[in-house]
Amino acid sequence: MNFASDNAGPAHPSVWEAMARADRGHATPYGNDDLTRDVANRLRDLIGLPDAAVALVTTGTAANSLALACLCPPWGRIYCAREAHIEVDELGAPEAFIGGGKLTLLDTEDGRFTPDTLRHAIASAQSGIHANVPAVVSLTNLSEAGTLWPLADIAEVVEIAHGAGLKVHLDGARLANAIAAADYDLRDLFATGLDAVVFGGTKNGLPGVEAVILRNGGKQLELEQRRKRFGHLLSKHRYLAAQMDAYLTDGLWRDLATRANAAAAKLSQGLQRKGATLLHPVQGNEVFCALPRAIHRALNAGGAAYYLIPDASLDGPEDAMLGARLVCNWSTDEDEIEAFLALL
Amino acid sequence: MNFASDNAGPAHPSVWEAMARADRGHATPYGNDDLTRDVANRLRDLIGLPDAAVALVTTGTAANSLALACLCPPWGRIYCAREAHIEVDELGAPEAFIGGGKLTLLDTEDGRFTPDTLRHAIASAQSGIHANVPAVVSLTNLSEAGTLWPLADIAEVVEIAHGAGLKVHLDGARLANAIAAADYDLRDLFATGLDAVVFGGTKNGLPGVEAVILRNGGKQLELEQRRKRFGHLLSKHRYLAAQMDAYLTDGLWRDLATRANAAAAKLSQGLQRKGATLLHPVQGNEVFCALPRAIHRALNAGGAAYYLIPDASLDGPEDAMLGARLVCNWSTDEDEIEAFLALL
Amino acid sequence: MNFASDNAGPAHPSVWEAMARADRGHATPYGNDDLTRDVANRLRDLIGLPDAAVALVTTGTAANSLALACLCPPWGRIYCAREAHIEVDELGAPEAFIGGGKLTLLDTEDGRFTPDTLRHAIASAQSGIHANVPAVVSLTNLSEAGTLWPLADIAEVVEIAHGAGLKVHLDGARLANAIAAADYDLRDLFATGLDAVVFGGTKNGLPGVEAVILRNGGKQLELEQRRKRFGHLLSKHRYLAAQMDAYLTDGLWRDLATRANAAAAKLSQGLQRKGATLLHPVQGNEVFCALPRAIHRALNAGGAAYYLIPDASLDGPEDAMLGARLVCNWSTDEDEIEAFLALL
Amino acid sequence: MNFASDNAGPAHPSVWEAMARADRGHATPYGNDDLTRDVANRLRDLIGLPDAAVALVTTGTAANSLALACLCPPWGRIYCAREAHIEVDELGAPEAFIGGGKLTLLDTEDGRFTPDTLRHAIASAQSGIHANVPAVVSLTNLSEAGTLWPLADIAEVVEIAHGAGLKVHLDGARLANAIAAADYDLRDLFATGLDAVVFGGTKNGLPGVEAVILRNGGKQLELEQRRKRFGHLLSKHRYLAAQMDAYLTDGLWRDLATRANAAAAKLSQGLQRKGATLLHPVQGNEVFCALPRAIHRALNAGGAAYYLIPDASLDGPEDAMLGARLVCNWSTDEDEIEAFLALL
Repeated sequence: MNFASDNAGPAHPSVWEAMARADRGHATPYGNDDLTRDVANRLRDLIGLPDAAVALVTTGTAANSLALACLCPPWGRIYCAREAHIEVDELGAPEAFIGGGKLTLLDTEDGRFTPDTLRHAIASAQSGIHANVPAVVSLTNLSEAGTLWPLADIAEVVEIAHGAGLKVHLDGARLANAIAAADYDLRDLFATGLDAVVFGGTKNGLPGVEAVILRNGGKQLELEQRRKRFGHLLSKHRYLAAQMDAYLTDGLWRDLATRANAAAAKLSQGLQRKGATLLHPVQGNEVFCALPRAIHRALNAGGAAYYLIPDASLDGPEDAMLGARLVCNWSTDEDEIEAFLALL
Repeated sequence: MNFASDNAGPAHPSVWEAMARADRGHATPYGNDDLTRDVANRLRDLIGLPDAAVALVTTGTAANSLALACLCPPWGRIYCAREAHIEVDELGAPEAFIGGGKLTLLDTEDGRFTPDTLRHAIASAQSGIHANVPAVVSLTNLSEAGTLWPLADIAEVVEIAHGAGLKVHLDGARLANAIAAADYDLRDLFATGLDAVVFGGTKNGLPGVEAVILRNGGKQLELEQRRKRFGHLLSKHRYLAAQMDAYLTDGLWRDLATRANAAAAKLSQGLQRKGATLLHPVQGNEVFCALPRAIHRALNAGGAAYYLIPDASLDGPEDAMLGARLVCNWSTDEDEIEAFLALL
Repeated sequence: MNFASDNAGPAHPSVWEAMARADRGHATPYGNDDLTRDVANRLRDLIGLPDAAVALVTTGTAANSLALACLCPPWGRIYCAREAHIEVDELGAPEAFIGGGKLTLLDTEDGRFTPDTLRHAIASAQSGIHANVPAVVSLTNLSEAGTLWPLADIAEVVEIAHGAGLKVHLDGARLANAIAAADYDLRDLFATGLDAVVFGGTKNGLPGVEAVILRNGGKQLELEQRRKRFGHLLSKHRYLAAQMDAYLTDGLWRDLATRANAAAAKLSQGLQRKGATLLHPVQGNEVFCALPRAIHRALNAGGAAYYLIPDASLDGPEDAMLGARLVCNWSTDEDEIEAFLALL
Repeated sequence: MNFASDNAGPAHPSVWEAMARADRGHATPYGNDDLTRDVANRLRDLIGLPDAAVALVTTGTAANSLALACLCPPWGRIYCAREAHIEVDELGAPEAFIGGGKLTLLDTEDGRFTPDTLRHAIASAQSGIHANVPAVVSLTNLSEAGTLWPLADIAEVVEIAHGAGLKVHLDGARLANAIAAADYDLRDLFATGLDAVVFGGTKNGLPGVEAVILRNGGKQLELEQRRKRFGHLLSKHRYLAAQMDAYLTDGLWRDLATRANAAAAKLSQGLQRKGATLLHPVQGNEVFCALPRAIHRALNAGGAAYYLIPDASLDGPEDAMLGARLVCNWSTDEDEIEAFLALL
């Protein structure tokens, strides 16, 4: 009954098999192997951008930071959700990779800011030499509240941003869950005009690979230089490529996300039947809900693992309502959910 | 017949098995799992420093850069070999992680600088506020010429450095090869007083793990903060821990290095028999030798892979002598070496 | 009728005289002259901290950024007013000097945040390795709304911050105005426990000098290294020292600020008599008020210079109320104010 | 008898007069005043590049670092003389402003590297993703040995650099001395194709102003953004502009340099008559010579101030030959030189 994080789950067997295949014999290191080239091209094909710049890295923090560093000058300003991962959970890595930059936080509802909030923020930026210059808008899909950004809203954000001379970055740590839920293709996503996308694999069944994708293929070398300069070019790169290879084969990325989403749906339905209040709509593989502290204590004692949101203590008044985040992954099975609901 | 790099070889089967074991069920992400804790403690035990700071990362560039950033202030100066990896092959990553720093290059013979060269360099550092302040000495063992730093020489370097208020870093991308060749223990190495050591695994049969070790255990948090800030904290950290787990079990690291060293010895003996000139003593798993261009062409045509040192072209006068670097790894087998020597 | 900025005014004659005196003959460059040493000691004496670290620089941006870099690690978090100069007007210089850092913005009233706002912000900081670590609280006195921070409130902020392990920085671009208005001494200010203070001179009659003062004298060398590394150590440093010399002599700093404050008081009284609404209490040398656009147009046409707050256009509905900031400096004379009020 | 540094001398009276004129009344701060605009245009006119980007700063370190940051990406490599100020005397400021970069040091004779040395260095740069990318060549004129770079040699360096895709920067802390000695115009210098020039004023009679000039006028905004971001935009900018105004008026910069050069010529002739050995040809305002320690002691005791090169002690064997650097400035008068030579 581990709902702490999709990061807590195992990797999918077919990924290990792909790595074992890649392990045979010698391969040119540092990404100059055939599999790496092939995988990058398959990604370009899937997104419908044959010239896109592509690079693989092992963490979402590195992926987001590299993408932003390719879009934002040291004196630039990035607009993002107040609770965005790049603001809250990356210990300043985006600013470190950019060598500057400043994040301006937008208020959100259910994890998403509105087009109007963005418009207003950009319009109220101070002109002149003294303030950071608006440069990038960053979205997260699934949002930090587990909700979807509808394609039309993404397109509107891109339109606003481009109209004001800004680029748009999408943090896609759970992009597979979003796309599987809304049932469209990677091509549809890129057709909105997004400038940079992190296509995450780690939370969705890979040991550890994220793809950084830039629309502007002219930035391929810069992307690789920045990756190397922060120590993120793996010598035995074939093992990253193999993970992505398996991920893209037969739509594994979509299947794994669909399973995780289904588990979350089942979990949230059960929770609601038992009287829990959902804090946000459940649209992917994350469930945010409120329960009395007494229940949390019982669940904890029964072996259920998940985070209280925000950080809260199990000590205190029994009837206080505490928020919780429960995350499902591809391997979350029915028994686990049933056991959890039974504990409730 | 691939002697291009030890990075080009496969990972050892027992490492995959350890990763498969670690893959079962859920694990707390971001290094807060039991295996990670256990492996760090086994490393501390092996080096004889129960309080050392330890962190795992996926690349040597990140490992060196993190170690140096924990030793060198932004206005510091690092002394290293003119051909050191941190100078030549890391695209400025050490300076990026330090947020400054300056590398001062020492002349070498067979990849090692002498104590006197170091003494003279430190003594001639400019005093006052205008010049970078001597802060760190960095060694590479095996050196970039494939040679060993004798323990006594390492101890002498440490003594000189500490006497002048500097710290000492050891880039151990091929440390296992060095220790296996010179036949001592990790404890003996740390007994020299080294402040930071990168204990490499990637070139010696792991898919991708290097351990950063700092003598000063008070720096554990800072080391982890720096690792996170540059995107190097893996969420599914158990897979890194599993690699190191296998590496440390039953002395695998030493066995793999011993095999690679033996292969290099056999290769260099064969080369010498065939008349090749060794450019440096062969003391680990690397062979540097000179051969006429005509021979290189024939080897290349026959399918042998290795680098010319420095970068040189196969086009040109047939009888020109060109240097080559041939690297063996744990999987290099006798047949491969025989086939290569036969081609000669 | 120039109320655009205290930066727009001239320097005081006695400052030029001090520079002329310093100009005679040769002086050791880079701050190793007698006058520089003497001035630093006079400052230490005035603040009652004989061991404080002191450095002079030519801009407030450099002064604040240096001070913060000495207090905040690259992974640290700085709490400041939402409209603080370090956030809004320094193009990311604090982060550039720190080599990281992140500013967390506090809501304010009349330019000041409350102790409770600060307490709540610190308490809600996320623990763990993923988020920037609370490190510094930054105050501005006069605040960006031209108001005073009472000594007792500064002391309370220091107590909260120190209690949570944070340091406190005070941006004193207009500190002379604040102290002159509240009628206490520099010693009283430092007795609150502040860790770093920028004692500004440029807005108060100097051509361009700000003093960075750190309570921790052990940081003197680090302060100077950081100053040099960002190009802020002037070779002919005696001209900076001479400015500060004049500033400290016979309480010139206090006299100039008193004059500017008196002018602002007169100006605000006149504005109120004419029906203008003050947007913030006038407690130093700045007046924030609202007037109909038609009046702004007339003032502008009549030659009055000042900024609309926030950036607004003179084009638009005549009766819309627009905010304005009017700043007085030591040279603002009665005639100028009378002429302005007459225009109204 | 102060020959320690041209920085040790006073400012020229006409510069103070220009500052006094600029001090009258109010002026728009932050470089938006008329005088600043006018001075920039006069500079553009003098160099024959009506579109050049121009910015004034208060130190040579800032000027060089800003210029290099506009030419060199974080992963770039800069070739410069082994003893260049940017390597030896700026505490890593160029790397701090660039946010990376790496200096590769060229051997020199009399302070200048040869075209062949440069060609060889560029040609031997390692290709691929692992090493810093050749980006900039940096010259110093006067060189650090006080010698001139002939115009034809500058042009050759530019040709080599541009041919290999690199930019060229000239550190002109003593450019006025070089141009006055070689008797050409600023236009002639820029006609060589230099991409960035620091036109120094501080060592030649200004209190503290250096002009950064970039051939590529499209970089004006970037230059100003970088200047602001490192705290180098002065609010009362008119005082910088006034200094440069006086410097450019009636060729003051050339006159002051001519006087300093003449003093150095007289000094070096006297030294040679007395038997001193010149270490480098005297071509500007610096004299490098060797004298026995006993003589240095006597000079020191007699009140002569100058630096031993390299740092050396007056204690030791009397007959040891020690190098010295003696620098003249515009205010060095005949009496001072006569007194010094008499002491000898």
